[in-house]
Amino acid sequence: MQQNKRKIINDPVLGFINIPSEFLYDLIQHPYMQRLNRIKQLGLASFVYPGTQHTRFLHSIGAMHLMTDAIAQLKAKGNDITDDEASGLLAAILLHDIGHTPFSHTLENVLIKNFNHEQITLLLIERINKEFGGTLHTAISIFKNEYPKRYLHQLVSGQVDMDRLDYLIRDSFFSGVAEGTIGAERIIKMLTVKDDSIAIEAKGIYSIENFLIARRLMYWQVYLHKTAVAAEKMLVNILTRAKELSAQGTTLFASPALSFFITKNISDQNFPENEEAIQNFIQLDDSDITSAIKVWMAHTDKVLSTLSNHFINRKLFKVKISDTAFNPSEIEDLNKKYQQYFSISKAEATYFYAEGPIQSDTYNPNADNIKILYNDGQVKEISDASDMLNTNMLSSRTTKYYLCYLQL
Amino acid sequence: MQQNKRKIINDPVLGFINIPSEFLYDLIQHPYMQRLNRIKQLGLASFVYPGTQHTRFLHSIGAMHLMTDAIAQLKAKGNDITDDEASGLLAAILLHDIGHTPFSHTLENVLIKNFNHEQITLLLIERINKEFGGTLHTAISIFKNEYPKRYLHQLVSGQVDMDRLDYLIRDSFFSGVAEGTIGAERIIKMLTVKDDSIAIEAKGIYSIENFLIARRLMYWQVYLHKTAVAAEKMLVNILTRAKELSAQGTTLFASPALSFFITKNISDQNFPENEEAIQNFIQLDDSDITSAIKVWMAHTDKVLSTLSNHFINRKLFKVKISDTAFNPSEIEDLNKKYQQYFSISKAEATYFYAEGPIQSDTYNPNADNIKILYNDGQVKEISDASDMLNTNMLSSRTTKYYLCYLQL
Amino acid sequence: MQQNKRKIINDPVLGFINIPSEFLYDLIQHPYMQRLNRIKQLGLASFVYPGTQHTRFLHSIGAMHLMTDAIAQLKAKGNDITDDEASGLLAAILLHDIGHTPFSHTLENVLIKNFNHEQITLLLIERINKEFGGTLHTAISIFKNEYPKRYLHQLVSGQVDMDRLDYLIRDSFFSGVAEGTIGAERIIKMLTVKDDSIAIEAKGIYSIENFLIARRLMYWQVYLHKTAVAAEKMLVNILTRAKELSAQGTTLFASPALSFFITKNISDQNFPENEEAIQNFIQLDDSDITSAIKVWMAHTDKVLSTLSNHFINRKLFKVKISDTAFNPSEIEDLNKKYQQYFSISKAEATYFYAEGPIQSDTYNPNADNIKILYNDGQVKEISDASDMLNTNMLSSRTTKYYLCYLQL
Amino acid sequence: MQQNKRKIINDPVLGFINIPSEFLYDLIQHPYMQRLNRIKQLGLASFVYPGTQHTRFLHSIGAMHLMTDAIAQLKAKGNDITDDEASGLLAAILLHDIGHTPFSHTLENVLIKNFNHEQITLLLIERINKEFGGTLHTAISIFKNEYPKRYLHQLVSGQVDMDRLDYLIRDSFFSGVAEGTIGAERIIKMLTVKDDSIAIEAKGIYSIENFLIARRLMYWQVYLHKTAVAAEKMLVNILTRAKELSAQGTTLFASPALSFFITKNISDQNFPENEEAIQNFIQLDDSDITSAIKVWMAHTDKVLSTLSNHFINRKLFKVKISDTAFNPSEIEDLNKKYQQYFSISKAEATYFYAEGPIQSDTYNPNADNIKILYNDGQVKEISDASDMLNTNMLSSRTTKYYLCYLQL
Repeated sequence: MQQNKRKIINDPVLGFINIPSEFLYDLIQHPYMQRLNRIKQLGLASFVYPGTQHTRFLHSIGAMHLMTDAIAQLKAKGNDITDDEASGLLAAILLHDIGHTPFSHTLENVLIKNFNHEQITLLLIERINKEFGGTLHTAISIFKNEYPKRYLHQLVSGQVDMDRLDYLIRDSFFSGVAEGTIGAERIIKMLTVKDDSIAIEAKGIYSIENFLIARRLMYWQVYLHKTAVAAEKMLVNILTRAKELSAQGTTLFASPALSFFITKNISDQNFPENEEAIQNFIQLDDSDITSAIKVWMAHTDKVLSTLSNHFINRKLFKVKISDTAFNPSEIEDLNKKYQQYFSISKAEATYFYAEGPIQSDTYNPNADNIKILYNDGQVKEISDASDMLNTNMLSSRTTKYYLCYLQL
Repeated sequence: MQQNKRKIINDPVLGFINIPSEFLYDLIQHPYMQRLNRIKQLGLASFVYPGTQHTRFLHSIGAMHLMTDAIAQLKAKGNDITDDEASGLLAAILLHDIGHTPFSHTLENVLIKNFNHEQITLLLIERINKEFGGTLHTAISIFKNEYPKRYLHQLVSGQVDMDRLDYLIRDSFFSGVAEGTIGAERIIKMLTVKDDSIAIEAKGIYSIENFLIARRLMYWQVYLHKTAVAAEKMLVNILTRAKELSAQGTTLFASPALSFFITKNISDQNFPENEEAIQNFIQLDDSDITSAIKVWMAHTDKVLSTLSNHFINRKLFKVKISDTAFNPSEIEDLNKKYQQYFSISKAEATYFYAEGPIQSDTYNPNADNIKILYNDGQVKEISDASDMLNTNMLSSRTTKYYLCYLQL
Repeated sequence: MQQNKRKIINDPVLGFINIPSEFLYDLIQHPYMQRLNRIKQLGLASFVYPGTQHTRFLHSIGAMHLMTDAIAQLKAKGNDITDDEASGLLAAILLHDIGHTPFSHTLENVLIKNFNHEQITLLLIERINKEFGGTLHTAISIFKNEYPKRYLHQLVSGQVDMDRLDYLIRDSFFSGVAEGTIGAERIIKMLTVKDDSIAIEAKGIYSIENFLIARRLMYWQVYLHKTAVAAEKMLVNILTRAKELSAQGTTLFASPALSFFITKNISDQNFPENEEAIQNFIQLDDSDITSAIKVWMAHTDKVLSTLSNHFINRKLFKVKISDTAFNPSEIEDLNKKYQQYFSISKAEATYFYAEGPIQSDTYNPNADNIKILYNDGQVKEISDASDMLNTNMLSSRTTKYYLCYLQL
Repeated sequence: MQQNKRKIINDPVLGFINIPSEFLYDLIQHPYMQRLNRIKQLGLASFVYPGTQHTRFLHSIGAMHLMTDAIAQLKAKGNDITDDEASGLLAAILLHDIGHTPFSHTLENVLIKNFNHEQITLLLIERINKEFGGTLHTAISIFKNEYPKRYLHQLVSGQVDMDRLDYLIRDSFFSGVAEGTIGAERIIKMLTVKDDSIAIEAKGIYSIENFLIARRLMYWQVYLHKTAVAAEKMLVNILTRAKELSAQGTTLFASPALSFFITKNISDQNFPENEEAIQNFIQLDDSDITSAIKVWMAHTDKVLSTLSNHFINRKLFKVKISDTAFNPSEIEDLNKKYQQYFSISKAEATYFYAEGPIQSDTYNPNADNIKILYNDGQVKEISDASDMLNTNMLSSRTTKYYLCYLQL
């Protein structure tokens, strides 16, 4: 490695992180990775937990660091992982988030219809691969789950992958929700491979229970905190209104990259072939959104300016949470109130509120079933192995309903 | 408060702790409290987690500190807690452990038959009360659950009392099992009172789930770690053998206090009336046991010296854990092996192993049912309120079996 | 306080922070304060320490929290602080940073000539005061050091003010430079007042030595890290070039607020009377700068586009540090190299490097002399009281020189 | 390594510690090392900082862990360290404290005249070496500073050795004096070798300044805290009185090991040849002292019983600290007061107080001069390299005087 390449990163969560090779250093320096340093990991949760300003960049590096530990553990237990595979694993986890939009999941479907960040991540990794002369071949194969050793993919994207281990300890650290932390290092020590699949040694069962419950805590306490949900819905409405105004011929201030996605109809279908879309995508980060919305506060459209003003100055939607869907008549009354108050149409009034099930798409308990390996070679799913966790719960999903609206 | 009375304690876990009053300062300085600074909180778990040398003294002060927070919260929510009640609560939680034997639970039944540390705690608090001119009257009433406001007792000894909140964060801190921590401060903020009973506000349900699962993790990972269990069984066998030898007329080195309990048959029945027993009890701490066993390493009795030697030099019993009881024939074989190896009797050979259910008496899930208070005034038990935790589990108990034995 | 006003903030550094009153809650919600949540505390140091994404908003709230502790301590020691004074102190420290430009100190003189952030802070506080019906009168008086009790001002801006205590523990926490932490709580416990001036009790002398040395460590290890300096110089050159191009009639993409400061010549002289300038100032934050520079990467001006590209993709200036000024001939050679390489003029070539003394203006050891109060009533300056710190050092200043330049 | 050998230790300070080899595991299991788990690292400082119950055992293992990091760093920088040397370094640092008496430095000269714990450590290492068939040969050579590569010894015992790095972060952690922490990991990364001597890279100068100031803070805030000094002097007087009584023919309760040192006159001269002394020494730990003093509370000798009672119940000597020695007449008055109060002789009265310079022998600033290596190959002492630290201070020593006495 060249002398002038900084080899150590100081991470408040994991301590000193050594960048394992020049290859990985060069990936970290790539513009697609540097862009992640301008996208916050938790998006609008920082309205609730103001310490959570950390970026997807540091998370990716942290996940890479945990991967080095996982590789060392698995090799120590007799699993053969070649240097090429190790390098592929590290590159795959390092790059696993480069397809994210600004403000993480919030804007995905607003900017690009049927957006799938894994699809775009793959597309971008393949572009880097071309630049780098094919050295990402193994990483791509692992990422796509086409690599023969299937368990390698599970370390990148699976029930206890390095992504989850890192984001839970990291988000717990920066939010100040200390009890949301997990025993990442202990869990990694208990990783093993059984039938080409990642499993956890039986003595790790309590750590896994704790991991599942801590994750659940973080979801409801932080990620899906009702105020964060309110802010997200507000942001979605602002961008949707901007797109609508734009479609009607109104000119809106925006950086060229943001302007592109506001004025064009891009979807998962036409994105991959659209070089201009890709070029604009990789320019886009949190700053474009924030910078534009501040300007929109003075826009002549009452809907856009009101929402922008409230968003920037943190006068967020009020939120109600319920176990059942809200009554349509309650929502209709709300709509009428805004029509009257702002002298706007029924369609325009819909921008001042939002309702629906809480992002249960983000939290899929189905995928959480984890294999536990006993000393006698037996394997059980965690839902069978644990006498504490509710089996049905692990194979079903929780839905809550929110109704959020502008307070007049 | 007098100038020369140190008013602040530096706690690595909770930060600066202010001692709230001269009355509490004087209690802390009482010999019964100072004795707790010579009894380790986790007893022999320090053989496994060498950072856990912390004492019951600091735990008691930590629990008192959390109680000041709990009182402030409950008062802020409109619950009337008088100064006398507050003082009583603080005194009761501060003194709640003074009846403990050395090495915590391990030696309870060995030193005093049918030992009940709450009974002795009460007896000792009443003695202090006499010395202090009756100022512990409210504390005693709360401790005995005779105080009219029943919920005050629950803060001292209940499902989410200050004892548990403190020991979980403290033991997690000193053991290095960081993921065993709980959101003590957050839980305290969600304490409320409903129908003269402590309840948790509904939004705290995830914190409570995490509390229950973290406690379970700490039990199996730390408190009931198989090596700690092995050490405890060894210690019990050593003391039991010492009592037996003593009964046979053998003289053993021991401090007078330890000697008293080795040579006399003290039980919960005769203890309270036996002033000599009480005087010796309050002299007894971890140092008496350790100091004596070191001397017994050179005793002529092969059983006592062998076990003492192994214990002091951390050559602990080997342990097997099983979900079902061990086969009597396996144990019989073991006995014969020791008879032969040491040329000893069948009865003597029993000292070289131990078997039984793992201290399920320490962990009683029945008592864990916690009241959740919803915004509409409804109250549910946590087992009903949580869709994640296994209802049956919360109302049953886990039993594991151990077999531990000297490795030859 | 109204129910819907969020009263507690979860700070990973200081734990739960209670907002002491509705008045302070309303200040926190003011747009001038919310803007600080879009300005990073450490600006470009995040290029070196990627954990330091925290904002001036959370720092301000942290400093307010420490102030509540300081007030409680001083009152407990018999100093009379009225409720109005306490409220003024809390408001003054909360608002002490609202006059900051984006990227903190870096852009101060580029955007506004002879910028003085304290002057602008005062101007903005006075505007809020009008809105709030004069309730900031005491805060302003303390902030301007016109309040009769002079020591109150020192808690807001002095040698050991709450600003410094908070930023040192906070920046240490987020950077991962744990050894840069200070005993903020311990120092606050040792605050006292002597002759209307803040002093430290003599037993706190070691904490103060540690505070001074930790601050020095943080300066050279973090704030003035050579890579951070390089990034800052690059950013200054980019904005200066943008202003120059603009003066020449070139149109540049920028948000209206940024555009205002790029196209107008604003200085400390004309700013206070210029309502348009003030309105644009309060719109400006980090996102405007970042968003614009990304667009400038494609600008036709070679100087602007090259620098913008390097800045965004973290190909920062290379830096040399020296104890003496760099040789003019070395710099001239450098200039010629860039002229040749880019086919540009001598004046244009100067944008590709920067040199000068390292921001010694940021670190003024003169101001660090702290009063130590002995038990006998005697007061000594820390430079006399400490036998460990170099007296001359404390009354002089360190200068280092940097030369940073684009690597071709 | 055998399966049943526990290979990982959970350290709350340093995280998971891997025991690097079976050889080191066997050393850890040796009775001389296990004894350190019964000797507190900070002795009586736990009377002031009740969290500091940690033992010399865990400190030794922590220092060994830091040594593995230091070896890796130095090797990565091109210094050849053979496997035998690495193993010797690890063994030497692991065993560096086995010659300590109970309660660390306090009792050294009381139990053994002219006690030198390094001499006894060496003697004990040599005994283990015999048991282990000479495998400690390199460790001994390094420990005695006879090994040809001189810099290896400095890692075990030098200005920035692994002993100091570990104890500072560890004692800071357990005391709760967080600001006493140092950048151990950062300092290790800056270790280098110049002219067969350990040096620190120039960019590490601020870390070293912080290390020296943090150490100073820990000395005055924790190690030499006046209450800890008071407790130590009390303990010394108790043991000295016990020896005196014993010399007069009085029988005292004590474990055989403690009894040996109370009744015999052992000095550095006769210890090494006295097998019985050595055998008793390795039996002795904190528990013998505590256990005996508790019994002495009831002794007929008024001096011994009074002091023992006050010690056990933490009614410690009151302390005055002064920059100059105390006036003999003040001390004489004190003596008379005790004579009268207890009706005792002048000689007996001396046990109720103590005075002298504060353990300046523990803190020798002379030894702190550390080599700084500049990029140009130049080496400076830290006193010359740092413009912040007082040169004279670094080459002189601070003396304070204490007078502590029983409060009647």
